[in-house]
Amino acid sequence: MDILQVIEPLVCTQRVEGLRDSSLRVLRDVNGKIQVAVDPIGVRPGNWVYTASGSAARYAAGDFRVLTDLTIAGLIDFWDTDPGQ
Amino acid sequence: MDILQVIEPLVCTQRVEGLRDSSLRVLRDVNGKIQVAVDPIGVRPGNWVYTASGSAARYAAGDFRVLTDLTIAGLIDFWDTDPGQ
Amino acid sequence: MDILQVIEPLVCTQRVEGLRDSSLRVLRDVNGKIQVAVDPIGVRPGNWVYTASGSAARYAAGDFRVLTDLTIAGLIDFWDTDPGQ
Amino acid sequence: MDILQVIEPLVCTQRVEGLRDSSLRVLRDVNGKIQVAVDPIGVRPGNWVYTASGSAARYAAGDFRVLTDLTIAGLIDFWDTDPGQ
Amino acid sequence: MDILQVIEPLVCTQRVEGLRDSSLRVLRDVNGKIQVAVDPIGVRPGNWVYTASGSAARYAAGDFRVLTDLTIAGLIDFWDTDPGQ
Repeated sequence: MDILQVIEPLVCTQRVEGLRDSSLRVLRDVNGKIQVAVDPIGVRPGNWVYTASGSAARYAAGDFRVLTDLTIAGLIDFWDTDPGQ
Repeated sequence: MDILQVIEPLVCTQRVEGLRDSSLRVLRDVNGKIQVAVDPIGVRPGNWVYTASGSAARYAAGDFRVLTDLTIAGLIDFWDTDPGQ
Repeated sequence: MDILQVIEPLVCTQRVEGLRDSSLRVLRDVNGKIQVAVDPIGVRPGNWVYTASGSAARYAAGDFRVLTDLTIAGLIDFWDTDPGQ
Repeated sequence: MDILQVIEPLVCTQRVEGLRDSSLRVLRDVNGKIQVAVDPIGVRPGNWVYTASGSAARYAAGDFRVLTDLTIAGLIDFWDTDPGQ
Repeated sequence: MDILQVIEPLVCTQRVEGLRDSSLRVLRDVNGKIQVAVDPIGVRPGNWVYTASGSAARYAAGDFRVLTDLTIAGLIDFWDTDPGQ
């Protein structure tokens, strides 16, 4: 599972039916790479989260029929961007 | 899910049966990496979209028997290539 | 799905039973990265193809019991290595 | 399967139900990339482990309903960070 | 499927039950990246092999209950590290 920071909601009025009414968030990793994830928890911009990908993402969305490949799985209580150093 | 820009349709007369008559689009990410996705929505060159990969891509294609590993899942209303900065 | 160029057949006399008698091709992307794919179409060195990965690759091989994670899904009619520029 | 070093436990009080009460560990590869994995073995910071990803990760967690995409599969007895050189 | 070179066996006395008694090998790609794979064939250090990943890896292990995400699928008869150049 990857550790990513929440940037903003993703506004997207036209999407495939399979995503239903799930909330989408734009996330960024420490190298600046951007991804989109389903948010079943309700996170805010600036939060650090970890995400489940692949088939686990569909189940983590709370409804396995949600057609995501990335879902926020948890909110990290505290995150130092350079752990263990 | 990744955020990609639509470049052009992919013309491909010889393909495996499993892709059926699905429309294919060439997409490019912010670093210039090129990928091919099934388009169940009908997007145009220049649009920014986000994509579902893996087994979710097959379901997102509207017919899980479509043998894709990448499907356009939504059209982003507005996309700034450098979000949150 | 990724866009790759066919380099050569892969000669491999000792393999797991699950690959059966499928034809294997060595492919290379624009950055020089090498991969091996099952070829259900019959492509030639120099051809540009796009590939399906993951579980879609097994189905695209025409027999889902073929234990591949990458299968050639289509032959691209014409490919400019720098699209949309 | 990837070889990673254990950095620290991940403290995370708010998470999706699908992760149940599994222990989470922050891991780092030789290039410094950080990931989060479920730990069904009980490893300590500094240990080198190898991990199973994808659907195998769910089964390796000991309960396939645990919604992880990365699980520690084994503890390496001895690991030289530059093998075979 | 990726092409990798066998480096050495992986000694690992403590592992999850799901890996059973499968033999593990440390592999390295042309860029030096290290991975661990199940070996159902019996390869030796220095051999070049190609590997199946994802769910195909579990089936390629000869017993789909083996919880691997990477399995050696074949031994390459001859491999030039710079093909097609």
